[in-house]
Amino acid sequence: MQFALTPLDEHELLVFWTQLLVLVAAARFCGAVMRRLNLPSVIGQLGAGVILGPSIFGRVWTDGFEWFLPEHEISSGALFAVSWLGVAFLLVTAGFETDLGLIRRLGRAAALVTGFSLVVPLIGGLVVGGVLPESFIGPESDRTVFALFVAAALAVSALAVIAKILSELGLMRRDFGQITVAAGMANDVVGWIMLAVFTGFATSGEVSTSGIVRTVGGLAIFLALAMTVGQRVVDRALRWVRRDGPDVAGAMTVVVMTMLIYGVATQALGIEAVLGAFVAGVVLHRSRFQQREVLDHLESVTNTFLAPVFFATAGLRVDLGLLGQDDAIAWAGVVVAVAIVAKFVGAFVGAKLAGQSNRAATALGAGLNARGALEIVIASVGLSLGVFTETAYTVIVIVPLITSIFAAVSLRIVVRDWRGTDKEQERLDREEALAKNLVVTSQRILLPSKGHPASIAAAQLAQFAWPKEAPSTILTVGDEDADISVLEAVLDEREVDHNRSSGVSIGSARDVAASIVAESNLGYGVVVVGVA
Amino acid sequence: MQFALTPLDEHELLVFWTQLLVLVAAARFCGAVMRRLNLPSVIGQLGAGVILGPSIFGRVWTDGFEWFLPEHEISSGALFAVSWLGVAFLLVTAGFETDLGLIRRLGRAAALVTGFSLVVPLIGGLVVGGVLPESFIGPESDRTVFALFVAAALAVSALAVIAKILSELGLMRRDFGQITVAAGMANDVVGWIMLAVFTGFATSGEVSTSGIVRTVGGLAIFLALAMTVGQRVVDRALRWVRRDGPDVAGAMTVVVMTMLIYGVATQALGIEAVLGAFVAGVVLHRSRFQQREVLDHLESVTNTFLAPVFFATAGLRVDLGLLGQDDAIAWAGVVVAVAIVAKFVGAFVGAKLAGQSNRAATALGAGLNARGALEIVIASVGLSLGVFTETAYTVIVIVPLITSIFAAVSLRIVVRDWRGTDKEQERLDREEALAKNLVVTSQRILLPSKGHPASIAAAQLAQFAWPKEAPSTILTVGDEDADISVLEAVLDEREVDHNRSSGVSIGSARDVAASIVAESNLGYGVVVVGVA
Repeated sequence: MQFALTPLDEHELLVFWTQLLVLVAAARFCGAVMRRLNLPSVIGQLGAGVILGPSIFGRVWTDGFEWFLPEHEISSGALFAVSWLGVAFLLVTAGFETDLGLIRRLGRAAALVTGFSLVVPLIGGLVVGGVLPESFIGPESDRTVFALFVAAALAVSALAVIAKILSELGLMRRDFGQITVAAGMANDVVGWIMLAVFTGFATSGEVSTSGIVRTVGGLAIFLALAMTVGQRVVDRALRWVRRDGPDVAGAMTVVVMTMLIYGVATQALGIEAVLGAFVAGVVLHRSRFQQREVLDHLESVTNTFLAPVFFATAGLRVDLGLLGQDDAIAWAGVVVAVAIVAKFVGAFVGAKLAGQSNRAATALGAGLNARGALEIVIASVGLSLGVFTETAYTVIVIVPLITSIFAAVSLRIVVRDWRGTDKEQERLDREEALAKNLVVTSQRILLPSKGHPASIAAAQLAQFAWPKEAPSTILTVGDEDADISVLEAVLDEREVDHNRSSGVSIGSARDVAASIVAESNLGYGVVVVGVA
Repeated sequence: MQFALTPLDEHELLVFWTQLLVLVAAARFCGAVMRRLNLPSVIGQLGAGVILGPSIFGRVWTDGFEWFLPEHEISSGALFAVSWLGVAFLLVTAGFETDLGLIRRLGRAAALVTGFSLVVPLIGGLVVGGVLPESFIGPESDRTVFALFVAAALAVSALAVIAKILSELGLMRRDFGQITVAAGMANDVVGWIMLAVFTGFATSGEVSTSGIVRTVGGLAIFLALAMTVGQRVVDRALRWVRRDGPDVAGAMTVVVMTMLIYGVATQALGIEAVLGAFVAGVVLHRSRFQQREVLDHLESVTNTFLAPVFFATAGLRVDLGLLGQDDAIAWAGVVVAVAIVAKFVGAFVGAKLAGQSNRAATALGAGLNARGALEIVIASVGLSLGVFTETAYTVIVIVPLITSIFAAVSLRIVVRDWRGTDKEQERLDREEALAKNLVVTSQRILLPSKGHPASIAAAQLAQFAWPKEAPSTILTVGDEDADISVLEAVLDEREVDHNRSSGVSIGSARDVAASIVAESNLGYGVVVVGVA
């Protein structure tokens, strides 16, 4: 049979390496400049792409631009492959940093802020999407799908930007900071799900009842399987690679395979591999056998190299010249204004309903206005799927550029010299003291025990000294009938699980010790043993 | 102007993610199986590609194969981009592990072994390349270039395979092990240079005097600049990112930028970006401001994900069915036989001339027979450039599969129960004691001093306690005329450099302390201060 792979020839390889060099260098440079100005680096990376795109580089030196971005499909494929790899890795790390537990703990406040800060701009976006000119709607789409994509793009917030500003100003652990982070993360989760559902509609060409059932049903089944069976398989795999102590290469294999399997599954369902990568990150983070170093390794290659390629490539597709046609520049103003006002109003109302002060509500309205990676992904997917024309894409991509700057500047003004309540201060002091203690951390506690009194004393000590957030595992070896109910009662308010190790030769002290050592390899902060 | 980038559509994205998932899963699985069998994992990864290629998967399930490897150029571009990224990262790490100092130290022995183990198979390869049928020669090449590529492919050795076996058997620090490693690294360096030169010939279509001058001249200029000006710029950059202590993200940026700049430079010279990536690794390793963690980060993403994609893709291009045509299978036998015999004879003769025992010479002949990544890269480049037909490619790729197995098995047999001489044993004992000492290591020594007697005593202590391999830096702050000649004399046999820090306010103790702290951030094993 005829063989199908066409390799890149020498010239195409030169173009490919040059593209990577120029995009990474420009993106990192502009990103660093933005950071110096206390603005998000993503904005600089996107801007670098805009400069290297048809609007500026393409006009200034057309021959060079045509060499740099040839019309060969093989070259486009090569550049987009690196770009997609970058966004997939970026989403694994974003998912890894999403703490579903925090969202749950802050329950009502986070839900109100998230709900209103999403719904109001969604409505605003649907209205704007309904009135934007026909020429903005891509060839593969009807107006409903188009309006949904516009709404999704306006509704999402960028946690990274907000988190960075809050942590710089030392506000991260404040009540307000915690709500912002929880709302930002919940926002991300809902944003990815919206993108998945709307992509499903776009792929089937229209919003129909059967389309909704298929997409939402597929997504629901994927999420259910990914978070249950998938979670257990990932747990098992991460536990297995760690059986002899930390093994970063093994854990990295689990991370990469989970990302690829979830990515292929979501892509096959017509809901974008990037959602799969994000869910993979969440699942990997939820596993107690995860190894934090893997995230560091992934992040350093992603943040320095692959993600900048993605953002710069997204910028390359912006053509500012298109703003001159069809009143596009006026429409861009409308879109940006709706984005800022709707987000601000939504977050402010949600925060007030959740009982926050006027200042906290204003800060939330300002901070959640930042948009970043997620909106750029939504715009890119919309362009790729033919939902957006290049004009609409250019208008939509202007939103994060402006709203992020607005958010960074206004948030700084609102929170300047803002001191919390006494109660809040007390919690912060306690947390600070805890952070300085190298022994007492909120990592998991291992308590090997058969329920003897000495173990109960040990459990009481652990319960007293360690923060309530630290979960614990009681390990009983061999003894099937060990009564650990007293221990569980002592470790009140704390997540406790019970692991019965099947020591074969009961009574062999060596066997028991080996079981305890094997278990302790799996990532505990402390092992507490009561010796009678 | 018309915009040039064509994005991957939803179906192409699904194919892309599926290709990555299947290739990585199969490659890692087959690699792990090979490792269990004590064979190099690269062979398993290549084999996984062969199984997924036209020979097996393509015959068993043609429809599935056509879906998996569509003929669209955009899909080929995407897969090759990941594959090239994998090989570039792999070569940075290979370069990083190439210790030019070791090659220099073992000078004559390494040179003799390397020289003969390269020249004999080169001659063998040229002869075979001269007699292989016309149908093996690619459309873009004449027989001279073809024979040169065959010779290069047969001449190179794979250090990774040998090093792994030696370290498993605990022979790495033995005299014989050191020579093998030095010869393997020298082999790699020469192999990359050969590939660069021959690629230059292939790009210009023939071997002409002007072609030789252009390629060799270009390569010489690149190497000279890369190792001098480039080295200094890399040093400066790595030193700068480290000014406030280790900064892995900063160092990773330097690594990525160096790789891309060197890659683009070599590709522009027509000598393959992969050589540039290798030289980038060597330069980064030579800098004393490098941070070892960067290599770990790069390696974990490369070894678990990107490199397996490269090897599996190389395997995909093998079509075993072609062996049935033109007596190809017989020719494959000839090529493998010449590869094994010529390499063995060359290494054996070189080792005997270097004064090695028969056993050591046999072990070198066996071990250096392993081929791996470099040969696969040479074959891939040959196929891409149209020097090899697919039949020739398939024949050439069989060589590493068989020689690596031969090397692994025969080396184990030769070195079993092999004890070194007494003198060698003494050195090994000393090294072992040193390795256990956490304070005395062979990292660089920092000696802040103005030449006072207390510093001389400190230098004597350091000279006595630390191994000769540990280089040292004498730091003088402020005092332009400090006489450090005595210190240099004390630190005899040791590489010493002198750094005058331009402390502005001489005499300010705080300023001096700050200079010493700033310097010590730059990666020293120990700071020795004489206090009078």
